[in-house]
Amino acid sequence: MRQRNKPWAKEKLHEYKDIVISEPENQKGNWHEIFNNNNPIYIEVGTGKGQFISQMAKKNPDGNFIGIELSASVIVTALDKVLETEVENVRLLNVNAEKLTDYFSESEISRVFLNFSDPWPKNRHEKRRLMYSDFLSVYETILKPEGEVHFKTDNQALFEYSIYSFSNYGMIIKNVSLDLHKSDFENNVMTEYEEKFSEKGNRIYRCEAQFRNKAR
Amino acid sequence: MRQRNKPWAKEKLHEYKDIVISEPENQKGNWHEIFNNNNPIYIEVGTGKGQFISQMAKKNPDGNFIGIELSASVIVTALDKVLETEVENVRLLNVNAEKLTDYFSESEISRVFLNFSDPWPKNRHEKRRLMYSDFLSVYETILKPEGEVHFKTDNQALFEYSIYSFSNYGMIIKNVSLDLHKSDFENNVMTEYEEKFSEKGNRIYRCEAQFRNKAR
Repeated sequence: MRQRNKPWAKEKLHEYKDIVISEPENQKGNWHEIFNNNNPIYIEVGTGKGQFISQMAKKNPDGNFIGIELSASVIVTALDKVLETEVENVRLLNVNAEKLTDYFSESEISRVFLNFSDPWPKNRHEKRRLMYSDFLSVYETILKPEGEVHFKTDNQALFEYSIYSFSNYGMIIKNVSLDLHKSDFENNVMTEYEEKFSEKGNRIYRCEAQFRNKAR
Repeated sequence: MRQRNKPWAKEKLHEYKDIVISEPENQKGNWHEIFNNNNPIYIEVGTGKGQFISQMAKKNPDGNFIGIELSASVIVTALDKVLETEVENVRLLNVNAEKLTDYFSESEISRVFLNFSDPWPKNRHEKRRLMYSDFLSVYETILKPEGEVHFKTDNQALFEYSIYSFSNYGMIIKNVSLDLHKSDFENNVMTEYEEKFSEKGNRIYRCEAQFRNKAR
């Protein structure tokens, strides 16, 4: 994603520190206190401009949503989206996904969403893909037993790779859709990218991958 | 596959009993004797009209190929194809795939090919699909350790189901192609169906599924 650099972004994120949590390591194991309820917590890794997380939060008031995005210049747009949508069950983290176990304790999370993640198409960048085994291990740790990763993309090669990576890790891949917008999947919430690429006629690929048994 | 019934088929199969093996249970564990060499043995389950198995055999003289097909009226066409192609490393079995363990001993087979298998689209027919867990268990028994199933189809729903079924069984799904004829997969041998449906512009889906560890 090519983005204009926004030097004022960090400052704006700081202004809204009730939404953009600045020291998430202090919340580890206690995210329910931030949301002030015991509803399940869903995270989106690579939340981009925030349409998905905001709309999901609006449609699912009984869930808590945390959007994670490394780029300050991008997450500042997600912050605007959260403010516009007037949802109280969203928080944003401007952090690196590699460190999720610093911010969430074991089994604290109910679901991980990966939407239109950077495909990193070169083989030598495989380790940067959010479906690489090291990331799966992080998700497995913070997810509840039998927790799920819900993934969609328009990138055929990334989806092909993900089927390999999920299955090689021992995950069960369920509810596969190789053409989401022509499937009977209901209540799909679109990302900004998804709107743009599906309008062009691109197929959207989607699956759910479940960790078989955390106790293995 | 809708096929004309051919009452003379059984008789013709019997005429060529050096190719169409009539009592395969007697060969269990001894297929190498039939081929008179120690080359790896590959089977195609649901071999249809036999173009794939004949061409594969021609292109791979260092392998032995066995085509399995339940319908006598269909396998008789495969017999013609084998005769036309003048390959000596093919045998045909007019038997039910459910009983493969009656015909092959443990680890006797090097690879299972599933090409354009009947999709059995109704949920209540799931058990008839050649990727259903009971069939996978049969393949696992007769395949060598880390043996592979190579599967292709133009049926999107069947491919979606197969990703679930393979991964749920604990298999590793490799070399996924969601558009085979636009991929860099080399040496693809087409089936009759594949020629027909890809000409219509249908995508061909393909993957390789590996049994993780037979010793588990």
